[in-house]
Amino acid sequence: MTSVIDKMCQQTAGWLSGEGVDSDIVISSRTRLARNLQNISFVDRATEDEHRESLSKVLNAVQDNEFLNDGFYFDISILDDLDRQFFLERRLISTDFIEKDNPRGFFVTPNEETSIMINEEDHFRIQKLCSGFNLEETWHYVHQVYEELSRDLTFAFSERFGYLTACPTNVGTGVRFSVFIHLPVLTFTKEIEKVFAEMIPTGIAVRGFYGEGSKVIGNFFQISNQFTLGWTEQGILDRVIPFIKRFVSLERDARDRVMNDDRIIIEDKIYRALGILANVRILSSIEFLDLLSALRLGADLDMVNNINRKSFNELIVFTQPAHIQKIEGRKLTERERDTIRARLVREKLHFN
Amino acid sequence: MTSVIDKMCQQTAGWLSGEGVDSDIVISSRTRLARNLQNISFVDRATEDEHRESLSKVLNAVQDNEFLNDGFYFDISILDDLDRQFFLERRLISTDFIEKDNPRGFFVTPNEETSIMINEEDHFRIQKLCSGFNLEETWHYVHQVYEELSRDLTFAFSERFGYLTACPTNVGTGVRFSVFIHLPVLTFTKEIEKVFAEMIPTGIAVRGFYGEGSKVIGNFFQISNQFTLGWTEQGILDRVIPFIKRFVSLERDARDRVMNDDRIIIEDKIYRALGILANVRILSSIEFLDLLSALRLGADLDMVNNINRKSFNELIVFTQPAHIQKIEGRKLTERERDTIRARLVREKLHFN
Repeated sequence: MTSVIDKMCQQTAGWLSGEGVDSDIVISSRTRLARNLQNISFVDRATEDEHRESLSKVLNAVQDNEFLNDGFYFDISILDDLDRQFFLERRLISTDFIEKDNPRGFFVTPNEETSIMINEEDHFRIQKLCSGFNLEETWHYVHQVYEELSRDLTFAFSERFGYLTACPTNVGTGVRFSVFIHLPVLTFTKEIEKVFAEMIPTGIAVRGFYGEGSKVIGNFFQISNQFTLGWTEQGILDRVIPFIKRFVSLERDARDRVMNDDRIIIEDKIYRALGILANVRILSSIEFLDLLSALRLGADLDMVNNINRKSFNELIVFTQPAHIQKIEGRKLTERERDTIRARLVREKLHFN
Repeated sequence: MTSVIDKMCQQTAGWLSGEGVDSDIVISSRTRLARNLQNISFVDRATEDEHRESLSKVLNAVQDNEFLNDGFYFDISILDDLDRQFFLERRLISTDFIEKDNPRGFFVTPNEETSIMINEEDHFRIQKLCSGFNLEETWHYVHQVYEELSRDLTFAFSERFGYLTACPTNVGTGVRFSVFIHLPVLTFTKEIEKVFAEMIPTGIAVRGFYGEGSKVIGNFFQISNQFTLGWTEQGILDRVIPFIKRFVSLERDARDRVMNDDRIIIEDKIYRALGILANVRILSSIEFLDLLSALRLGADLDMVNNINRKSFNELIVFTQPAHIQKIEGRKLTERERDTIRARLVREKLHFN
C-alpha cells in the first residue's frame, strides 16, 4: 500500500482543482450517504463476526460496482498512525474512523472524489466531493453508485422512518449535503455571527475546519443539513442550496462594501499576509490557514497575482501535519514541521 | 520660525548618523548638565519677573557663547502643539517643558547635538548628544560650553552639597550621563530582567523609549546614572561607562548564542518583520518600532542588506506622530498617520 499512498501524497485530489461554480468562495461540495445492512447489528453493537460480515459484503459490492472499478481499498488496521492522519487530512475518513478498532476499511477512487468508509458509525458511508458549488452533481453521482450497490445489498429500512442509521439525525434518507466555504469578509465584519444565529432553527448547521466539533480556522466553514427525517433527498437539496447561495451573495456584497468603505484595512490584512508568507521561517498550520485566507481573498480581489485557485486549495491540504511528515518521509517534531511548512509555503507560492 | 522648523523636519540630527563606537548597539550617548542661577528663585517657586530674569540672563549668555554661535532659539509659548510635540520627538525638550506655562524657551544648534532648555525644572539644562557610544566626548563638550557660560553667570552652589538643583537627585554635579541602547536579544532571552534587577542598588537606572516613566518600545532603552551627590563628574563617568560596556558585551554574547542555538527563531522574527514592513498599509508607531528593532537586528546579523544604520536611526525619529504630521503639513487622525507611516516606511526602506 505504501506506494499507492506515496503516489497520493504527490497528487492533488480532483475536488481541489479550484474549478466549478462560485469556486472563489465555495471550495468544494459534498454529498454523503449512510446505509446499514439488513439483519446485521449496527457497528456499535456488532460482534466481531458481524463486523467481518458487513465489511466483506460491502467491499464485495463496492468492488463489483461499475462506477468504482479503478479504486483502492485500505484496511485501516494495517495503516500506521501517520497514514491514518494523512487520510484524515485528505478528508477521506473521519476521526471516529481512526480511533475505533473493529474490522473496518475504506475505498477511494484515484481522483479521491469518491470514497466509501466501511464500518465507521454505519455499515458504510459513500462520500462524493467536487470542486466548487455543485451539490446536485455530487448527489446524482452518489445516487448512481448507490443504485448499483442496491443490486447486491439489502438495507435496514423502516416503513415509518425510512433508512435506519446509527445516529438519529441521519435516519430517513441518510444523506448529508455540505459545502466547504471561505467567508473571510463576513467573518471580518462579524455579520457571520448574525447569519449563523438566524440559521439555528432552520436545521442547517455550520461547523469548523475539520467538521463536527472542530474550530473555525482560516475563515473556512462547513455548512450542511442537520435534518433528513421526513424529507426527500431533493427536498433537502432544494432547501440547502438557497442557503449556500445566500452565503455566497452576502460574502460578495460584504466584499464590495469593505472595498468601498474600509479598503485600506483589507489591503493591510492582505499585504501583511503576503509579506509574512513570503518571509516566514516557522509557521504553524493554524497560522498558515489564517494567512492563506487573507492571501486567497487578495487573489479574489485582484490584489495578489500569480497564485491560482488550485494552488491555494492544494496548500490547505498539503501543509497539514501528516502531509508534511509524509513528504519528508519521517515523523517530525512540531518545530521541524513548522520549519518545513514555512519553506514549503514559500516555495509553493513562488516566493523563493 | 516656521521655515527653520520645516528645514529641521527635512534633516537628520547629527547624533542619528549611526557612526561612532559600538553604534550597532548604542544608538547615541548624552550628557545633560543642570544649573540654577544664584539669587533667583528656582523655577517652581519663581515670580513672573524672576522667570523673565533667568530666561534673559541665560539666553544672553548662551548667545554670547563661542561654542553656540550659530544656533536657534525657540520661545515655547509661541509654538503650537504640533511643533512642541515635534521638538519632543526630536529629543530636544521634555514633556515637562511642553506642559508648563512660565516664560521659557530652548536653544538648539543646527546639527541638533547641543540644546539648552531654559526654565524647565532648573534655570537651564545643557544637553549634548552624539552618535554611538562616546559619553566622554559629550561630557567634554558640555564642560567647555559650561565653562564659557560660567564667565557670564553665577550659579546656586552650596559648599556642603555642590551645585543646587530643583530635584535632589541632581544636586552635586547636576550631570546625567545616558545612552540610548538597543538590546533586542537580551530582551528576547529575558536575561535583561536579571541584569536590570542587579542594577537597582548601583544607582544606574534603566528607562523606556521616551525616558523617565516611559514604556519600553522596540527593545530600546535609556540607561543613566541616578547618583551625583558626593561624586565628581569623572567619577560618575568611570562608574557608568563599564556598565554600558557590560550591556554591549552581554548583548553581543547573547546574539552569538542565539545564532548558534535558536537561529531559526531569530530568522523567523527578522524575516517576518521584513515581510510586514515591506507590505504593511496601516502601521502604528509602536508596532513600527517593534518591527524596526527586529529588522535592525537582522542588519546587524547580516541577514538584511541594503539598509544602513543611519536609515534605521532616522526612521526612529521620522515615523513619530508629530513628524508624520509636519511632513504632511497638517493635523491628521490616527488612522491617517498610520497609513502615511506605512507608506513612508516602505519608501524609506526601498520596498516600493
